[in-house]
Amino acid sequence: MQSRDHDTEPLRLYTYWRSSAAYRVRIGLALKALAYESVPVHLLRDGGQQHAAGYRALNPQELVPVLVHGRRVLRQSLAILEYLDECWPQPALLPADARGRARVRALAQAVACDVHPLNNLRVLQFFEQQWAVPQAERETWVRHWIGTGLAALEAMLADDPATGAFCHGDAPGLADCCLVPQLYNARRFGMDVEAWPTLARIERACLALPAFRTAAPEAQPDAPAAS
Amino acid sequence: MQSRDHDTEPLRLYTYWRSSAAYRVRIGLALKALAYESVPVHLLRDGGQQHAAGYRALNPQELVPVLVHGRRVLRQSLAILEYLDECWPQPALLPADARGRARVRALAQAVACDVHPLNNLRVLQFFEQQWAVPQAERETWVRHWIGTGLAALEAMLADDPATGAFCHGDAPGLADCCLVPQLYNARRFGMDVEAWPTLARIERACLALPAFRTAAPEAQPDAPAAS
Repeated sequence: MQSRDHDTEPLRLYTYWRSSAAYRVRIGLALKALAYESVPVHLLRDGGQQHAAGYRALNPQELVPVLVHGRRVLRQSLAILEYLDECWPQPALLPADARGRARVRALAQAVACDVHPLNNLRVLQFFEQQWAVPQAERETWVRHWIGTGLAALEAMLADDPATGAFCHGDAPGLADCCLVPQLYNARRFGMDVEAWPTLARIERACLALPAFRTAAPEAQPDAPAAS
Repeated sequence: MQSRDHDTEPLRLYTYWRSSAAYRVRIGLALKALAYESVPVHLLRDGGQQHAAGYRALNPQELVPVLVHGRRVLRQSLAILEYLDECWPQPALLPADARGRARVRALAQAVACDVHPLNNLRVLQFFEQQWAVPQAERETWVRHWIGTGLAALEAMLADDPATGAFCHGDAPGLADCCLVPQLYNARRFGMDVEAWPTLARIERACLALPAFRTAAPEAQPDAPAAS
């Protein structure tokens, strides 16, 4: 545990075990060894608990995660991770130089803006409910955007000397917090992550760290029991 | 013009007049009164100039914008805007306090992650070319996500004392750089922006400033001549 003034105020994370965006924040919290209360929001039960009035008051976007820190309500996974980094600077999720910070943010956003939002639950529900798109076609869509996005990410990382054991240098950071959940998602849709050798290598380095394993979907209190 | 060391290195923006993401960066550059060379990338001509090998080497994501600063290649509009803010801190695009920064980033990401990527050109091309979705249905899709996203943004802004003449306080910043292009886009698809009174009010405050007008699609060198 870190000991700073911030520690006197509790952290509460509204999360869903399989949400890619919540998974990012759980990794950040674990890397910084911050204790928090986990409040599950079941995205499929009760017509989607994220749509309930109580949760909507917390987040009008009706999406997870939300982090509550004392009386502060924080939304959007990348904004939350930057907030954690500003309040608890060590270990840093972003490098110290402007150029490195821009690189890491761009890698994170290539996932968080250009892959994940196209494939999340509400989009797949739209296709099913509004357009009656068959499941096989919905999965083709998901794989198309994961494939497009991760091929670009592989190209951005593979030949760049700034890439190290992790996305940026030899310590995990913001980009790794986004990469690992996205690869988890790729695997869920039957994709072979070895198609992107640099990403697969970085994922192995991440998953060797306890923080990433603690944050994993299957390790969450709201994950269904293994059969 | 600001006078700092950074000024000795030229800025070059790869842009398309109607790209919402490029528009954001143009607003940021204009707010900071930074001179730059504008390199148009026509997203529809030649099968999409963003897919040409030369551009792909600059940005494997094959998306605009890219900002080149000296030898540094910067990608992703929000990462670029934060970079500008770190290199040229005045006028600031982000507030000084961690809580305010988190709020502004979340507002910006509510647009840049959860509205825009669902509606951009490559997605609409996928629907047309892969699924033969008729134009009317494609427009229903666009309006659905703009409507969902901007209603949430309105709720996030309307009752929050941190909202001022602009999204955060009484000076324009990162969230406004995202809001104005998204409202431009809403109007393109025939939506009445007065449905979101706080957003419409902030848009008026923004468009009263020369920086926002300079950055507007119709003011770009690559915009088609008005008929």
